[in-house]
Amino acid sequence: MAPDPLIAAGVPGLVDLDPATFRAAAHQVVDLIADYLEGVEGYPVFPAIEPGSLRALFPAAAPDAPVPLGEILADYQALIVPNATHWQHPGFLAYFATTASGPGILGEMLTAALGQNPMLWRTSPIGTELEGVVVDWLRQALGLPEGFDGLLTDTASTSTLIAIAAAREAAGLKASAEGLAGRPELADGVRVYASAEAHSSIEKACMTLGLGRASLTRIAVNDRYEMDPAALAREVAADRAAGRVPLAVVATIGTTSSTSVDPVTAIAEIAEAERLWLHVDAAYAGPVALLPELRAPFAGWERADSIVVNPHKWLFTPLDASLLLTRRMDQLRAAFSLQPEYLRTIDRVRPVRDYNEYQPQLGRRFRALKLWILIRAFGLDGLRARIAGHLALAAEVREWIAADPDWELLAPTPFSTVCFRYHPAGVSESMLDELNAAVMDAVNRTGEVFLSHTRLAGRFTIRLAIGNLRTEERHVARAWELLRREAARLGAGG
Amino acid sequence: MAPDPLIAAGVPGLVDLDPATFRAAAHQVVDLIADYLEGVEGYPVFPAIEPGSLRALFPAAAPDAPVPLGEILADYQALIVPNATHWQHPGFLAYFATTASGPGILGEMLTAALGQNPMLWRTSPIGTELEGVVVDWLRQALGLPEGFDGLLTDTASTSTLIAIAAAREAAGLKASAEGLAGRPELADGVRVYASAEAHSSIEKACMTLGLGRASLTRIAVNDRYEMDPAALAREVAADRAAGRVPLAVVATIGTTSSTSVDPVTAIAEIAEAERLWLHVDAAYAGPVALLPELRAPFAGWERADSIVVNPHKWLFTPLDASLLLTRRMDQLRAAFSLQPEYLRTIDRVRPVRDYNEYQPQLGRRFRALKLWILIRAFGLDGLRARIAGHLALAAEVREWIAADPDWELLAPTPFSTVCFRYHPAGVSESMLDELNAAVMDAVNRTGEVFLSHTRLAGRFTIRLAIGNLRTEERHVARAWELLRREAARLGAGG
Repeated sequence: MAPDPLIAAGVPGLVDLDPATFRAAAHQVVDLIADYLEGVEGYPVFPAIEPGSLRALFPAAAPDAPVPLGEILADYQALIVPNATHWQHPGFLAYFATTASGPGILGEMLTAALGQNPMLWRTSPIGTELEGVVVDWLRQALGLPEGFDGLLTDTASTSTLIAIAAAREAAGLKASAEGLAGRPELADGVRVYASAEAHSSIEKACMTLGLGRASLTRIAVNDRYEMDPAALAREVAADRAAGRVPLAVVATIGTTSSTSVDPVTAIAEIAEAERLWLHVDAAYAGPVALLPELRAPFAGWERADSIVVNPHKWLFTPLDASLLLTRRMDQLRAAFSLQPEYLRTIDRVRPVRDYNEYQPQLGRRFRALKLWILIRAFGLDGLRARIAGHLALAAEVREWIAADPDWELLAPTPFSTVCFRYHPAGVSESMLDELNAAVMDAVNRTGEVFLSHTRLAGRFTIRLAIGNLRTEERHVARAWELLRREAARLGAGG
Repeated sequence: MAPDPLIAAGVPGLVDLDPATFRAAAHQVVDLIADYLEGVEGYPVFPAIEPGSLRALFPAAAPDAPVPLGEILADYQALIVPNATHWQHPGFLAYFATTASGPGILGEMLTAALGQNPMLWRTSPIGTELEGVVVDWLRQALGLPEGFDGLLTDTASTSTLIAIAAAREAAGLKASAEGLAGRPELADGVRVYASAEAHSSIEKACMTLGLGRASLTRIAVNDRYEMDPAALAREVAADRAAGRVPLAVVATIGTTSSTSVDPVTAIAEIAEAERLWLHVDAAYAGPVALLPELRAPFAGWERADSIVVNPHKWLFTPLDASLLLTRRMDQLRAAFSLQPEYLRTIDRVRPVRDYNEYQPQLGRRFRALKLWILIRAFGLDGLRARIAGHLALAAEVREWIAADPDWELLAPTPFSTVCFRYHPAGVSESMLDELNAAVMDAVNRTGEVFLSHTRLAGRFTIRLAIGNLRTEERHVARAWELLRREAARLGAGG
């Protein structure tokens, strides 16, 4: 970029990049992006660096003078890309994958340029109404009945927070208006229930919402890591007897550690009998319900008050996009609606859907656009085929592990995530955690694949989670090869 | 896009768009974007449509088969663009502007493609450390002392929610652990203070956090819409006398309705004496502090516990990017930190900055990238010149209105937003609200500019808010011309 002509001329600076400069730079960026995606396997999935090593690469203060775009893009290539964790790499088998698919990237490009803020219908008619379209497309595709409405949020954390905030209102607490402090009827506390394996976002929602971590009762799981509904019923009864106010239960279809599936129908029975809000966390596994023949794990979720499914996990959508479906939009509105004068609009048609009234934030990104593009570009059949492919790969990995006597499966594999450890004969239980941590670390240090871990029944557990759009059989086969190689090396040395 | 080859072949679908298809489509999208930005003035800022008119343009269900990208992009042009509110239009003078500048768009393109999730250092070393760099660049540029650290969030709503959640911890409530219900020491309630003119996000944070709308005490303002610190002191004293627990005060530098400036120094004195958390909402006006000679309205903000400034308002950054600065990161961590096993990492260097521990969401976008690009592309001097230009334009508009006896200024203009109404001789006060609403609506219906309103001292007030990067003198001159034209027409007919 040439020196800013307006500053040079002493004219008040009021302009963007000149159009030709922008167009040329954007084409250059597209080539950087396309080259990156084509060559992503050339990067180590996780870079060989330690915390604190990057900050010194950058100047301590921002420049006063403009930097040419060419220099900025060169710095991007030199400083940013090599120091990223490559979530786009097909060897990314950690956590749950987020893929920014090609259609998703095109969607984000257009989203950025169009600059919508669908906080009000009036601030983005298309952003508002297309959100309604896409939410309903997904509802139908997931096999959920009419009556579920919803919205797109940033993350499952926010979706679950909204659900529990709505539960506060549905229980008649008037928490939004009156708060939770100094309420004699709540003197003995409020309770939210989730399994011992449920995601930390539920606990965080309780923290944020003023319920406190103490309000979350963790329900015991069986040896398949599924919530025990009898234990739930006992806890609710004990809480009622003690004067506490049970509010909501979160059932998980696809827990984070082992992707276990809570018995939603049994939990729904209890929730209905006890008048608890039922929130279903299917943030990871939800897209499997796009395949009608694979909906068994989802039985009962249509009875939920709210459901979260994350397109930015297993629907190949760039961060961020979380789908919150609910049969009770009115309770979301009770929890979050405010209409200051500066947000009132002169609309001739009522009621108007102003999505800011259903979530904690006022400002909103136009997330429906990338989903509209992505769903059409792949087609539902294309999405189904890719999810089915991941499930088949996971089944294959599971077979490899089951067939090797030195390795041990540590949980069922209902979806695409395999939980296991190295457990050679003659190594005592007390040594296994350290050995498996070392094996995983050694595999990750190859840079070819990236795995993460959890603990199941107290045991260090390696997770191999398939969900990246670009992962093929050769990548998981290589992961298995590296695991065995490093295990043999470290096991022998141990 | 050709029919999905994997589906056709019965192979499990595991791939993205083929690289050549993606590259070609992305170049096509760049041309759409560049053409749009060059031609944005050709669109009405707000489209001439009514709520509910768009949904029927889209199929009721998602397609099973892939749709060619060319068809999707044609639909984008035909269905999406004409039905947007054009925040990118230089005639957008409503609310507070959000401009997606050229460098900001390039940043979003790269962000989408790189697919980072800097929730943990390990899930994005560069996303984590560059955030530290950019936060510190902005701290220095805004003239704030060392000791302020911070993070990038999605919106000011979230930034302010985080600040008040941290205030709960700093006050020793242990709300994150124990919640607010059933706490005898809070039996008489908790209080947060903000002026009568403060933004709805503060009220929403109180709702979300379980403090309740009732916990927010609105402090009276003077005739310049600035908080009266004596009234604040009285309210705090009365609350303490009544056994209530004062928690935090929010001072606003640039309120949403009139951009008034609370007396931060006087409020800081009270906050320090009363041990209240002081949060400064400079979401809109903050970037003015990039100009050292214009820092008078910011006097005292360096005494705040936390400050929010939104790059996605007046720093030309695409949604979303809100900067939360704080001197008390430890209290944010106390409010939001959780470390489940599946998020623990094996890092050799401690402590590691894992940003998810400082905010309600786990997942995070890589917002630092676009800011790093944008700040360098414009340079701080370029940003300063553009902000100075907007301030000069607003001063000019103010002079035009002041010079016309049929029009009335309704508030001071400390920044770039002018508040006024049409008030011709002979029209009674009781008619003015309706007349001004009609004038604003008529002006907006021309499609050439887009204004929004508020109420000040009960009076319908038109706001002309300058902040779009592309707004030049001719756009505000045209707005003034249209206002006078429509006022003359409607005033005469009324």
